[in-house]
Amino acid sequence: MNIVYKSEPERGRKWASLLADLAPGASFRQWPEVGNAEEVEYLVAWQPPENIMQQFPNLKVLFSVGAGADQFDYASLPPSLPVVRMIEPGLTQGMVEYVAFAVLGLHRDMPRYLQQQREEIWQAHSMRSAADCRIGVMGLGNLGEAVLKPLVAMGFDCGGWNRSPRDLPGVRCWTGEAQLSEFLARTDILICLLPLTASTEGILNADLFRQLPRGASLVQVGRGPQLDHDALLAALDEQHLAAAVIDVTVPEPLPAGHRFWQHPQIWLTPHIASQTQPESAVVALLENIRRFERGETMVGLVDRAKGY
Amino acid sequence: MNIVYKSEPERGRKWASLLADLAPGASFRQWPEVGNAEEVEYLVAWQPPENIMQQFPNLKVLFSVGAGADQFDYASLPPSLPVVRMIEPGLTQGMVEYVAFAVLGLHRDMPRYLQQQREEIWQAHSMRSAADCRIGVMGLGNLGEAVLKPLVAMGFDCGGWNRSPRDLPGVRCWTGEAQLSEFLARTDILICLLPLTASTEGILNADLFRQLPRGASLVQVGRGPQLDHDALLAALDEQHLAAAVIDVTVPEPLPAGHRFWQHPQIWLTPHIASQTQPESAVVALLENIRRFERGETMVGLVDRAKGY
Repeated sequence: MNIVYKSEPERGRKWASLLADLAPGASFRQWPEVGNAEEVEYLVAWQPPENIMQQFPNLKVLFSVGAGADQFDYASLPPSLPVVRMIEPGLTQGMVEYVAFAVLGLHRDMPRYLQQQREEIWQAHSMRSAADCRIGVMGLGNLGEAVLKPLVAMGFDCGGWNRSPRDLPGVRCWTGEAQLSEFLARTDILICLLPLTASTEGILNADLFRQLPRGASLVQVGRGPQLDHDALLAALDEQHLAAAVIDVTVPEPLPAGHRFWQHPQIWLTPHIASQTQPESAVVALLENIRRFERGETMVGLVDRAKGY
Repeated sequence: MNIVYKSEPERGRKWASLLADLAPGASFRQWPEVGNAEEVEYLVAWQPPENIMQQFPNLKVLFSVGAGADQFDYASLPPSLPVVRMIEPGLTQGMVEYVAFAVLGLHRDMPRYLQQQREEIWQAHSMRSAADCRIGVMGLGNLGEAVLKPLVAMGFDCGGWNRSPRDLPGVRCWTGEAQLSEFLARTDILICLLPLTASTEGILNADLFRQLPRGASLVQVGRGPQLDHDALLAALDEQHLAAAVIDVTVPEPLPAGHRFWQHPQIWLTPHIASQTQPESAVVALLENIRRFERGETMVGLVDRAKGY
């Protein structure tokens, strides 16, 4: 088993030490020191090198080091090369924590209270119960399903929207373009966990915000290009939306002076909602390689027609 | 059944309308219009009137409208008058939400990220897993037990400390003065949910903070007089503590210019962690009155020797 890793080097050293323990027979090298490139079978990368098949003529699988695989230029990848997104419990757990934090913060008016703190105002506001707070998750994949679980347990009124039909315990599900408006009209806190595809690019726009009830909030943990920044700012300025928690933007980092930085109703974090955790990711990688070698379907295999 | 309510009037009107539905035979009046004072049996109050037994010579039970009963001057209350704290699911749910929000925020370095946002800095920091984050709840009563449940479910390493022995699923428990140091030494996020008594006044002081590991954080949702403000500020300035989420203070509101307002490592909220919810509180009140009338022990009955 010959693996090359091409991503953040410090984390790569953790992968190396974990793999040495878990798969002592495997060869694991960090880009650019790849050894004999002809022997490389598996590449774990955020951005693969150019001319990937010339670099690694015997490459068998390209693994994304993250939850998305939208960063790859599929035109440059041979159609027969399997591409796999990272699905591993450490990354899922991070997203569950972040979304629970964001939902509870929005539910309990925390952007307003922290702004009051800066203005030295001590003033309580009425609160609604979790049962009266309608959560809506767009994108009911592995992460969408996981983030809903603790929200259902805490008594929120949970819904979800997905391209294809889903059935989740305690969650009312809407499907496809035709049911998007109905889903949006009943959503007080909208969480975007969609993959980036041609049809989700720019999906968080003025038209979508208008369909949310007045006073709704947004949690954007999908991909930067899905959100129309000006439309969000306009919806907040018009007080149609109450607040937003944003973890991904275009560009990253945001430029100096961008209105998101100092906006009192926006909480902005630097793409930290969730990160692949080497300890659990190495286990998931090895399991997927075993599946591949046995001819089984790998977990997170990208369907190039769908784009995720 | 003759009930007088003496607290926030707008909420009192909700109590009145709910009671009219649930116990149509009951008399419910709002202070100061109490009707015939000799007929009053039950008083629901935050602060009772002075000379309470002269006011209401036939009073049978004093109910606190909130989770605490430390605001009462017990010297002025007849020893035979039962005093009852409010234990009701709406109030518990609010505390569960607030503490989960605070713990997740501290666990995920959110005070630091929101401060970075104000400084227009886009910088990620390494994160630890929930399993490596040691939660410690002081005070394992009804609220302490409830806030631990979702934290256990989310995989945090949960512990608790209580005056008398407790046994909670998934929670390592320490008991009494003798085990406090051991509990503190293993606690990364300390949550104070203690009642206010002579022995908990000022308990969150320099000596206690010193026993927490470096980098620990505090969630103060107990009572204002438990926290030594200067000691907390010193512990933050020395970077012994990383951050604090504070919902209760002395005095309330905090005066202008108090250092908590603008401190970048403090999140301050105006005593909103949890509030009695009329819908569920009225049900709990009626159930307690029924227990009292049947000679059973009421839920939340104050033990005056213990002070809660």
